[in-house]
Amino acid sequence: MRAVDIIMNKRAGKELSREEIGFLIGGYVAGEIPDYQVSAWAMAVFFQGMSPAETAVLTELMLKSGNTMDLSGISGPFVDKHSTGGVGDKTSLILAPIVAALGIKDPMMSGRALGHTGGTLDKLDAIPGYRTSLDIAEFRRILAKDGFAMTGQTKDIVPADRLLYALRDVTGTVESVPLITASILSKKVAEGADALVFDVKFGSGAFMKDAADGEKLARSLVDTGTAMGKRIIALLTDMNEPLGNMMGNFLEVEESLDCLEGKGAADLMEVTLELAARMVVLGGKAKDAAEGRRLCEDALASGKPRDLFLANIVSQGGDVKKFLDLRGTYRSPVSAEIRAEKSGFLSRIDAWKVGHAGVDLGVGRNRTEDAVSPTAGIQFHRKGGHSIAAGDLIMSVWARDEAGLAAALPQLRDAVEYAETETPARRLILKEIQS
Amino acid sequence: MRAVDIIMNKRAGKELSREEIGFLIGGYVAGEIPDYQVSAWAMAVFFQGMSPAETAVLTELMLKSGNTMDLSGISGPFVDKHSTGGVGDKTSLILAPIVAALGIKDPMMSGRALGHTGGTLDKLDAIPGYRTSLDIAEFRRILAKDGFAMTGQTKDIVPADRLLYALRDVTGTVESVPLITASILSKKVAEGADALVFDVKFGSGAFMKDAADGEKLARSLVDTGTAMGKRIIALLTDMNEPLGNMMGNFLEVEESLDCLEGKGAADLMEVTLELAARMVVLGGKAKDAAEGRRLCEDALASGKPRDLFLANIVSQGGDVKKFLDLRGTYRSPVSAEIRAEKSGFLSRIDAWKVGHAGVDLGVGRNRTEDAVSPTAGIQFHRKGGHSIAAGDLIMSVWARDEAGLAAALPQLRDAVEYAETETPARRLILKEIQS
Repeated sequence: MRAVDIIMNKRAGKELSREEIGFLIGGYVAGEIPDYQVSAWAMAVFFQGMSPAETAVLTELMLKSGNTMDLSGISGPFVDKHSTGGVGDKTSLILAPIVAALGIKDPMMSGRALGHTGGTLDKLDAIPGYRTSLDIAEFRRILAKDGFAMTGQTKDIVPADRLLYALRDVTGTVESVPLITASILSKKVAEGADALVFDVKFGSGAFMKDAADGEKLARSLVDTGTAMGKRIIALLTDMNEPLGNMMGNFLEVEESLDCLEGKGAADLMEVTLELAARMVVLGGKAKDAAEGRRLCEDALASGKPRDLFLANIVSQGGDVKKFLDLRGTYRSPVSAEIRAEKSGFLSRIDAWKVGHAGVDLGVGRNRTEDAVSPTAGIQFHRKGGHSIAAGDLIMSVWARDEAGLAAALPQLRDAVEYAETETPARRLILKEIQS
Repeated sequence: MRAVDIIMNKRAGKELSREEIGFLIGGYVAGEIPDYQVSAWAMAVFFQGMSPAETAVLTELMLKSGNTMDLSGISGPFVDKHSTGGVGDKTSLILAPIVAALGIKDPMMSGRALGHTGGTLDKLDAIPGYRTSLDIAEFRRILAKDGFAMTGQTKDIVPADRLLYALRDVTGTVESVPLITASILSKKVAEGADALVFDVKFGSGAFMKDAADGEKLARSLVDTGTAMGKRIIALLTDMNEPLGNMMGNFLEVEESLDCLEGKGAADLMEVTLELAARMVVLGGKAKDAAEGRRLCEDALASGKPRDLFLANIVSQGGDVKKFLDLRGTYRSPVSAEIRAEKSGFLSRIDAWKVGHAGVDLGVGRNRTEDAVSPTAGIQFHRKGGHSIAAGDLIMSVWARDEAGLAAALPQLRDAVEYAETETPARRLILKEIQS
């Protein structure tokens, strides 16, 4: 078997066998197949795609390149949610304690902010004392106790994905549905969950700019995950505007607590509850999404999710008192306001532009080695759909430093889209995809 | 400028700018851009192609990566022919002395056999004493004296092509018309010729299996070469059967001399004279191909090309007496015959199968570092179009060793295609492509 023949088979649009994919990817991870052959193969995959069977084989191979989380001895059901990344998306922090309150365990391994998208680990790191690098024993203990635990990926989880993703990132081969599928699924399956809910976002602030591409990815995740023996539901959700009223690391933790106290923004609560409802269904606690949602709303009203959220902060080393004291005041001293330039209607605040401005503010990063600021961010006082008068406050903006603020402000002004007439409300949940 | 953006632009089908191509290829040659980015780009080029302008820029950049042959001080015109590679194709050895007899200088840099295709340098090396590694001073002196000189490429000619070709070879990105064009043209322009005739072969024994693909390559060579200020004609010629009656290194030199003595096989003479006629036109010695062909036939009848052929052997260190003594007898001792298995018509001897059998016989090689045999090869006593009776001699076969013979014979038997009725003669020259 020769790597060049495998590349040429894919180039010709043929379905690769398990042996061929294993030869290439197994050889790459073992250091036997050079990166220049794998990058050429990845570009051929970009153009020719992969069948569901090929994608499942690739995902399995990647999964088997490392260790998986051992959840034996802890009672399930284990259900996790994964988002393809957005702006202001803090749904993980809210839904984990909600479903935990309903007896579902969420073993959550999250990532960091990159480019215009935020990262759950960076948000959690903004809580004083909170530790996001748990060892396996701690992770298991906290998961069993609180019903959810939040950690970063350890180096021995899917090393093939780290290798392959780094190569794809510099060779223009990121945007391939089967490769994205294998990357996401291998990591999620490695967490040990029995079932997964995917929040596949589309729109300016999402990885997939249009709904059709988002639906392809959702379908691929559902089909491949199902082929691997997992129960999967995907929701296709709108990411044209930031989700909720806060973007920033501490700001989003704060907003999550608001939501758990019944003071959540409507768009954020809608997406969170719809995702949580599917987790409850997959966890076997409800017969359908409507019942799941009712259970989640009841749980929320009981106050139990808020208690679990604060209990988890303690479990992971955080200082709850300090956290609650900082609430509403932990903001960067460098700040500004964005006010309406004209009267009429605010049709949208563009998530893509806000996300990129966030990097300048210090919320996110362009390179994985850059640090982020806990206290930088934006509070949105108005979003799309509001009527507006010139001079109305639209955003409060906090920046790590003056240079960052100066770089962000023009982008934020540009992110505000005005209209003369009222624009129809966006549908937040476009579609549900199941096997 | 970032390499990944250039790759993604090409992936999206955009035309790359001179600066972008220079950044990528210049950086690659300088060791600043890694091979995994260049291979991903090459695969994107395979799918998206390149415009004539992009191809010309790439060709120029590759040309400028090394030195070009300095022919100043020698009187022209300088015209060369290049074939895309075939089986039994010894036209270079015949047409160079023919056009030299008509006052055209042919500065010929040739290659070696690889895979099923033969190489001019390997054929010339079969002449006792003949040297195919000339330094620049020798090359210039012999070119000026004999009207043609034959050498291999020096290391400083188009180093970018050596790098890029080696990478394409192992990443499944060889079969791309613009990349092939840049590879061929950069090397040929570096020779210093003012005008070039391309013999673009199609058929089983050619790189391009069908005529339509061959025509695309021919059109690309003509357009790109013209954009670079060269005069170019391409002929699209049939390579479904070996050309002429001999395949082998010494055997083909011997057949070339036969041709120069008026005893050439019809198919070989037809292709050779049509190519030579275009060289005469491009060299300004004839107003059209018909006149060019008449001049070539007259030159051949005069015996002058034969004298120049033998003079060149002397000039390049060869032993003419020994060469002439070996004529008709310099054959490997391990031999066999292929005879007709049935009566009827011989419709074709498949060039692809014969070429591959040639590697086993010792005529060619699969890896550049392998040695070839001067005396291995095949004499074709009958080819496609002949009526045939069971037992008739079709091929005399000479092999380097018994193992090679045993491996080659079944392939050679398989290469003979029989028919019950007479098959129409193949058109050898399918098309002429000019700017």
